[in-house]
Amino acid sequence: MKALPPGSTIGILGGGQLGRMLAIAAAELGFDVHIYTPEANSPAARVAARTTVAAFDDADALARFASQVDVVTTEFENVPADATRALVTAGARVHPNPEALAIAQDRVAEKNFFNACGIATAPYAPVDSRADLDAALARIGAPAILKTRRLGYDGKGQARIATLADADAAYAALGGQPAILEGFCAFEREVSIVAARTIHNAFAPYDLVENVHAHGILHRTIAPARVDARVQEQAAGLASIVGDALDYAGVFAIEFFLMPDGSLIANEMAPRVHNSGHWTLDACIASQFEQHIRAVADWPLASPQRLCDAEMINLIGDDVTAWAALAAEPNSKLHLYGKHEARPGRKMGHVTRLKR
Amino acid sequence: MKALPPGSTIGILGGGQLGRMLAIAAAELGFDVHIYTPEANSPAARVAARTTVAAFDDADALARFASQVDVVTTEFENVPADATRALVTAGARVHPNPEALAIAQDRVAEKNFFNACGIATAPYAPVDSRADLDAALARIGAPAILKTRRLGYDGKGQARIATLADADAAYAALGGQPAILEGFCAFEREVSIVAARTIHNAFAPYDLVENVHAHGILHRTIAPARVDARVQEQAAGLASIVGDALDYAGVFAIEFFLMPDGSLIANEMAPRVHNSGHWTLDACIASQFEQHIRAVADWPLASPQRLCDAEMINLIGDDVTAWAALAAEPNSKLHLYGKHEARPGRKMGHVTRLKR
Repeated sequence: MKALPPGSTIGILGGGQLGRMLAIAAAELGFDVHIYTPEANSPAARVAARTTVAAFDDADALARFASQVDVVTTEFENVPADATRALVTAGARVHPNPEALAIAQDRVAEKNFFNACGIATAPYAPVDSRADLDAALARIGAPAILKTRRLGYDGKGQARIATLADADAAYAALGGQPAILEGFCAFEREVSIVAARTIHNAFAPYDLVENVHAHGILHRTIAPARVDARVQEQAAGLASIVGDALDYAGVFAIEFFLMPDGSLIANEMAPRVHNSGHWTLDACIASQFEQHIRAVADWPLASPQRLCDAEMINLIGDDVTAWAALAAEPNSKLHLYGKHEARPGRKMGHVTRLKR
Repeated sequence: MKALPPGSTIGILGGGQLGRMLAIAAAELGFDVHIYTPEANSPAARVAARTTVAAFDDADALARFASQVDVVTTEFENVPADATRALVTAGARVHPNPEALAIAQDRVAEKNFFNACGIATAPYAPVDSRADLDAALARIGAPAILKTRRLGYDGKGQARIATLADADAAYAALGGQPAILEGFCAFEREVSIVAARTIHNAFAPYDLVENVHAHGILHRTIAPARVDARVQEQAAGLASIVGDALDYAGVFAIEFFLMPDGSLIANEMAPRVHNSGHWTLDACIASQFEQHIRAVADWPLASPQRLCDAEMINLIGDDVTAWAALAAEPNSKLHLYGKHEARPGRKMGHVTRLKR
């Protein structure tokens, strides 16, 4: 495999803000971008050379797309793994590989994978029936969280079980979808690591960061995390193991619970650029978006070095109405995603406050 | 006049690399971009939401464009001033204003303007005939440079007159176009200042930089210029005078000759983002492209503060074949413009080396 020369076309599955920021990073390196998304007039399409608007199960459109691009990557993990397998069959280079996507798409497979890598997780059990839930609760106990195995993001598809009496309501809330029961972790902080890896085993982790969620959605990222250097090293080491195990090319993120004893419990991974890595756009030599494009194009990775401390705040729904005040902050960088309607819970942009 | 809200459409006249970098900066602030260019598949069009491919004298296309965008700006100064006037007549907000463009398009008008602002220039005289050239040489002497009054850039449309014996050849080289004879300045260095201004008189100059040209094309920019702080202040003061005199909105650049006695002689101005400001993409809080978009959208300007020293090298023609080595430099940022054919003298990209 050879580095893709500038002028090549990078195909991106998905048209949201991550695709938009990837497309911009690709353009800065001289690539053309072709977005594939079911959504008309998507945020990414408005900065891309070309767009295919089609469903992810449209075999003809996928085959055409495969023939028009030099490599395919994804901006979100819920692209059907079958779609990426179809692209591989059609001869496309696909990074990250479909197996990494498939693992990250299924919370049970993901936790099995973490444990197989020797990475601790909360106790968990698959729940495919009401009886499974009782058995799982008997083993794991309450408090616990019942989550859909697939397609959950930003706190969607989750129900808390504070006491055993909540079991019926939680099971009903998920509507009988295949689920997973996860034991509750009395964590001190939520942290995440974003790292880039190439198929030639180059590995470049960013600094560990600290995340604050609100209503299940990332609200704030503090870079670097206010933790011992030992914790940073531990997280980078675990990310390196995960990258190797998946033979991964691109950027990925692992979210951890930091426990009071300093140990890290893996919560989930994202086989893509990650919201908790947006601060890298403004505070690092190379952003996570540039690193991802470099990795999927088989270029050398750039430096992930942090140039200054930073704090990233997501602008969710109506938060974005504060754009004028945010644009006037002297040490802040405002990023807006070109979404024309500010629905509740929708990620409209983010602001990075640089600490210098 | 009110700040343009995110989601508005910024129209850009011109489809080259400056338009491409402006389009990216606009997208990062949540704007849609509509490129107007005579060139099919231009570098800027490949990162823009919409493109009109039409000539700059196509009145119907200009009127349609005016009705589809919320503000119009330009990426190069040789857009016919008539085109921008037609846009104003059609009701468009146009920044910078057509008068600023008109002055910068004519080397004689530009030098008259500098002098009217109290800014020193080399001695000059308009040359509209062979007899004018003799008269001008009698007054200014040799060495001198004969330049076309209009449409010159990157050293095109110029002929040196080392001794009076070169006059015939120089006159012939310009083919009888309206010209200007400029006296030679025995300068120590070439420097330039890039600054942003809003119609509310906000003014934000970047650090003065030092430029090295090769074959009439910018080769290297050193930021900041290795000069006395007094020279920086002087240049910023002159830029402020120019901005006020033009009632300017947007980014502009002035190139100066730095004389051995520390004085500055204005060479030319560019009513647009400028090649000698590309280093701001990587070494400043806000790039010249972001500042220009902010200024034309009537947003507050961001900080022009330099975060580290930098050196920018243009990649001209075949220079770009070194992309793989440049991409591997640890403290460098590579920018490629998506031009698929590396013709001699064509600006293909640039690399900024950060000095930290």
